[in-house]
Amino acid sequence: MKKYLFLLMAAVGLVANASAQQALWGASKVVSPELNKDRSVTFRLDAPDAKKVSVVGDFTTLDGKSIARADMVRGEKGIWEWTSPALISELFYYSFVVDGLKINDPANVYFNRDFASMANIVIVGGGYGDNYVAHDVAHGSLKREWYHSPTLGFDRRVTVYTPAGYEQSKKKYPVLYLLHGSGGDEEAWIIQGRTQHIMDNLIAQGKCEPMIVVITNGNNWQQAAPGETAEGLVYPSRRVRMKPKNDASFVDSFGDIINHIESNYRVIRKPEGRAVAGLSMGGGHSFRISYSYPKMFDYVGLFSASVNNVTDEKVAAQLAAQRDNGFKLYWIACGKTDFLYKNNIAYMKYLDKIDFPYEYRESEGGHTWRNWRMYISEFVPMLFKK
Amino acid sequence: MKKYLFLLMAAVGLVANASAQQALWGASKVVSPELNKDRSVTFRLDAPDAKKVSVVGDFTTLDGKSIARADMVRGEKGIWEWTSPALISELFYYSFVVDGLKINDPANVYFNRDFASMANIVIVGGGYGDNYVAHDVAHGSLKREWYHSPTLGFDRRVTVYTPAGYEQSKKKYPVLYLLHGSGGDEEAWIIQGRTQHIMDNLIAQGKCEPMIVVITNGNNWQQAAPGETAEGLVYPSRRVRMKPKNDASFVDSFGDIINHIESNYRVIRKPEGRAVAGLSMGGGHSFRISYSYPKMFDYVGLFSASVNNVTDEKVAAQLAAQRDNGFKLYWIACGKTDFLYKNNIAYMKYLDKIDFPYEYRESEGGHTWRNWRMYISEFVPMLFKK
Repeated sequence: MKKYLFLLMAAVGLVANASAQQALWGASKVVSPELNKDRSVTFRLDAPDAKKVSVVGDFTTLDGKSIARADMVRGEKGIWEWTSPALISELFYYSFVVDGLKINDPANVYFNRDFASMANIVIVGGGYGDNYVAHDVAHGSLKREWYHSPTLGFDRRVTVYTPAGYEQSKKKYPVLYLLHGSGGDEEAWIIQGRTQHIMDNLIAQGKCEPMIVVITNGNNWQQAAPGETAEGLVYPSRRVRMKPKNDASFVDSFGDIINHIESNYRVIRKPEGRAVAGLSMGGGHSFRISYSYPKMFDYVGLFSASVNNVTDEKVAAQLAAQRDNGFKLYWIACGKTDFLYKNNIAYMKYLDKIDFPYEYRESEGGHTWRNWRMYISEFVPMLFKK
Repeated sequence: MKKYLFLLMAAVGLVANASAQQALWGASKVVSPELNKDRSVTFRLDAPDAKKVSVVGDFTTLDGKSIARADMVRGEKGIWEWTSPALISELFYYSFVVDGLKINDPANVYFNRDFASMANIVIVGGGYGDNYVAHDVAHGSLKREWYHSPTLGFDRRVTVYTPAGYEQSKKKYPVLYLLHGSGGDEEAWIIQGRTQHIMDNLIAQGKCEPMIVVITNGNNWQQAAPGETAEGLVYPSRRVRMKPKNDASFVDSFGDIINHIESNYRVIRKPEGRAVAGLSMGGGHSFRISYSYPKMFDYVGLFSASVNNVTDEKVAAQLAAQRDNGFKLYWIACGKTDFLYKNNIAYMKYLDKIDFPYEYRESEGGHTWRNWRMYISEFVPMLFKK
């Protein structure tokens, strides 16, 4: 008993200690966000001195209405509250605006960084959102590691997902190379894309082959995500651009990543064991990588991709060669209101003209992570099927 | 050129798209924090409608003064500002308080979670702080993985640092098991403790042997850090306690972690290749683990540890056996104002009484991450020396 009495006293001591730092580390008194059974969400903020408090977010109601801002109502003790209508199953972003100042929700420790901005997140289940959170299934591993890129001339960081069982198995695994968009880095598909949870869940459900997912940094002028380099804790928009050797592009350097992965992981070193996909700029990278590295990838995914309109003869020849070499899947996905929608339509017209086989998935919405999480969830089940 | 024109247009499109979501994702207009050459730090907040703005933090000036709160001054355009005096080299925590409401710094994307609270961080260089940020050195890898604990009866998450060169080498590495305190989890030593950067830097400086660092989850009632389990994105203080099999403790289950690591990593499976250390509750764990697993660890570190006063005969016998079995280092560190200081002093009196060899490092300050980052920086250079 004495041991437990001591531990209790230690715990009390800890509380007293924490209390001294209340102003800095004080925890929240309110529950926010609260997921209700009817799929509505209640947001709360303890702000007795505020005059006006709103929620800003990207909510979509079950009947398809968008809500970008809602005023919260002040309760008796100065706790502001807003309950949404029933929402679709999704990961929503939100912040509070208190008398004109945008702040995080102090009662929610979950949020995402998107380039240089932060927003809290809340995930409503019952549909797509269910795959964006952890479940009681076998979990893969996530490793942040570094490789040398001789092409760019510096070391770079890469994030590698290995599926549950990889370490214990002796078999070779297929690899999906997954590329971010402009403003992103090797964290984007994990933080914003929830890729680790999507993979764990789809593999556990038997909907998807176990595969390695390699999340690269597609900015040829940087080594790694903010805070992970010798630049220190600099604000993302103020980062200094490094000069790549011989002005090499990320596409030029892609072989360095493949070499690193194929030298360090137990993988299938054949086209049928390789896929490349990306969103926006990363979709443009995937477009170029898949024709620049002939017979390398049997699976290609372009999500809201910045494809060009193929006026370059060399590109045209490479695309024709890609078509003739053959592959298993060339999947293009875009939202109807995406600012790159017209480009993707024009690109597919070109592909039709040269009899280049592809599949097209058109969705609602635009250039958003909501779509990219949905696209990756639909894309990976099509890969590496025997 | 057309390709670049297109990319430019795409970028413009992106900006327009982002602009529509300005309220949610708008980036900061001000620079904050700004590290000045004289080691002062300037904090800024764009809050034209605020009546009073303060910084709360744990600053220590170069002349040893503590600053826990400072009022910011409103500039002409409603940008509030405070410049600290010159500060010691350290990682400081801070938040803003705007008209009574504690908020994050919207211009700083770097912050830490401590159990259920968030605070921004800023790191001042020129001393200890230099090892808490990335430098242009060879970087180790950081892997989040899962293992099964037969003792507790469920799967658990563990964070593993492998030093630069591990993947390419064939040699066997020593392992430090590093344990967190109450309220922490398998992320604490990475997020709060900056262990990855400390290890990278000390190894690169030749001050420390390359070693694997295994950061466990020491809460026998949970599988993983918040957000990583089937509980979903629940607030840390509202997490449900799991029931461990046969009420097994974390110490009881420690063999499961050793088995997992020694089965999956290339490690030295001898006492001279194993160290265990922890802070607060994790120091108490290290105290108990090091005598409960005889001849397992040649190196033990107790940082601000919740050690007990050895009134239990079985514990006394195990400590005597540990002494007789021999080891290389038993390192106790505590701050003078730590609420566990007296306990550590009492424990060392007991060790003196039984001729149990140890080294003692007494520091200023109390039960803080500032001390624990310092202790780990001093502890690892003493490990695994030939």
